[in-house]
Amino acid sequence: MNEEGFFEGTEKLLEVWFSSSLSDGKSDEARYTEAGGRIAGPDLRRIDRSLWEDLLKLVHCEIISMKSDKDMDAYVLSESSMFVSKNRFILKTCGRTSLLHAVEPLLSLVQSECDMDRVDDLFYSRKKYTRPELQPAVHQNFNTEMNHLDSLFDNGAAYALGRMNADCWYLYTIDNIGVLQPDQTLEVLMQDLDPDVMDIFSVEHSHSADEAGRTSGVSQLMPDMIIDHFLFEPHGYSMNGILPNGQYITVHVTPEPHCSYVSFETNVAEESYRELITKVIKLFKPGKFLLTVFANKDSLAKNFYKELSRLNCFEAYHRCDHEYCQFKNYNLTFTSYLRPPALPPR
Amino acid sequence: MNEEGFFEGTEKLLEVWFSSSLSDGKSDEARYTEAGGRIAGPDLRRIDRSLWEDLLKLVHCEIISMKSDKDMDAYVLSESSMFVSKNRFILKTCGRTSLLHAVEPLLSLVQSECDMDRVDDLFYSRKKYTRPELQPAVHQNFNTEMNHLDSLFDNGAAYALGRMNADCWYLYTIDNIGVLQPDQTLEVLMQDLDPDVMDIFSVEHSHSADEAGRTSGVSQLMPDMIIDHFLFEPHGYSMNGILPNGQYITVHVTPEPHCSYVSFETNVAEESYRELITKVIKLFKPGKFLLTVFANKDSLAKNFYKELSRLNCFEAYHRCDHEYCQFKNYNLTFTSYLRPPALPPR
Repeated sequence: MNEEGFFEGTEKLLEVWFSSSLSDGKSDEARYTEAGGRIAGPDLRRIDRSLWEDLLKLVHCEIISMKSDKDMDAYVLSESSMFVSKNRFILKTCGRTSLLHAVEPLLSLVQSECDMDRVDDLFYSRKKYTRPELQPAVHQNFNTEMNHLDSLFDNGAAYALGRMNADCWYLYTIDNIGVLQPDQTLEVLMQDLDPDVMDIFSVEHSHSADEAGRTSGVSQLMPDMIIDHFLFEPHGYSMNGILPNGQYITVHVTPEPHCSYVSFETNVAEESYRELITKVIKLFKPGKFLLTVFANKDSLAKNFYKELSRLNCFEAYHRCDHEYCQFKNYNLTFTSYLRPPALPPR
Repeated sequence: MNEEGFFEGTEKLLEVWFSSSLSDGKSDEARYTEAGGRIAGPDLRRIDRSLWEDLLKLVHCEIISMKSDKDMDAYVLSESSMFVSKNRFILKTCGRTSLLHAVEPLLSLVQSECDMDRVDDLFYSRKKYTRPELQPAVHQNFNTEMNHLDSLFDNGAAYALGRMNADCWYLYTIDNIGVLQPDQTLEVLMQDLDPDVMDIFSVEHSHSADEAGRTSGVSQLMPDMIIDHFLFEPHGYSMNGILPNGQYITVHVTPEPHCSYVSFETNVAEESYRELITKVIKLFKPGKFLLTVFANKDSLAKNFYKELSRLNCFEAYHRCDHEYCQFKNYNLTFTSYLRPPALPPR
């Protein structure tokens, strides 16, 4: 929150997949010593919490809470979330954080601590900020973000989807075959939310994160999640839900009426996300929202883009834009929807 | 050509469809007096050549030649081409021209001379320039172009297709239902062309535009065209081909080896452009090329995007990017191809 009471809910989102050229084609897990008893071999979870904390200092955010299962460590941060599994790193930060300052240190950290020297795939994305001028220098416009990443990667590919003079969404990825296991990510980025729903996410209206999660319905979005969530003072809410096999959902709520923003993200594999998206928008009642769907060739969701391309409307919302990109291994769909203005009273 | 011998072949391309709210739903052609004997009713061809010349002064280019048939006036310009039909205006200009300076004057001219007060659709597009810093101020980056057009239109929608850190392509259009007759446009934008082919388009190698057109094969790209073309000194070539029913092809060649560029554009209606594109790339032998295909719901070409989405290669060229946008009435496909580097000699 800055002095004007404005908060930039829009997150910067980084997802990186690592591997080790040392273990190439060999079954050489034995070459690695056990670290901390739990983890052996090239694994991002070998990195000490204190080293993650150092990395997050560069971003200007910190760890609030952490929960784990056997496949993933999920962190709630002071500004959004971090998910660490064997070879996949996800960092999502909102506000005035400087996520890109962590990319090069992350690569060094992973190389030195986990012997993982290869970036198999990388995705940096964000919606256009509401107030770009309040961001740290490297994030003030997508050109500077792109130039920063171009200085780190030889095969970077930068895109803008949607309307550049409205709510577009930027992506920087690398032109690789990338991840060779089923993978998909759905994001629902919502603005202009229902004030009554937003009220739930304040200490004035809810006594705890549990209460806010239960009353709003966020905690029931998926069955059988390990939930870790936090209700900020005076308002704001973050939730991580851990599901089996490295699957997650994460929800972040910026309830301030003049800059309300909610993001929903998941990598849960589904053939169609229609039902899940419907649940999410019925819960939050946004005035407008964007969908982004990534799916690679082995993903259950690989044909969901066809369903989306036929939907001129989503519930009461009208589609504004629909774009589809084919990358080497992934397809990406961007769609934006708007609730038409209510008819004036007669 | 500037002092460094660099020429920006990349064109700015404007297409505007006009109509008259005065003739709305009425058969009121009689309300208009005959202008010049040939044209009655709301028709862009009622505009005097001298008024077009004044408009083109704002762009910093001039008319070199003109040919017509009953449906269209086609102009070869000192920098590219202009096509004027009853309700469609196309202006394509290369080099350091300032096309956007003509947009507002064009709207006024059409309103005052032709009683056409409505813009049914508008498309402004260009590839990323090779040397943006040499462009006039309004054209130096897409943000300034977008802001200029946003100042003229309430419902503008601006997009970037392809890689913003490589050869992307920008589009500004308006969010309208737009044109209600079959319409389609194909562009093939080529770079790094074969030097032997480029040699043909110089006065050193060809005695006339006719010879350059015939030797290169450009004149035979379509049967039965009315051809108007021009060979520039010392090199460079422009060609307009008029086909029945307001159809055209236009080809522009910048042959300088260090900045070679060729554009091919047509609105000829075809179910598949595969054969035509193959002809064009076999003729010019580019190192890389972009395709853009617009087709509206009534167009023969409306499903060509599906064919393109399946083509990972085009002849010997590998696909780099493939993007697809659905607008209210048009779909748009952007695809980029690269010739893989030749294997080193053994």
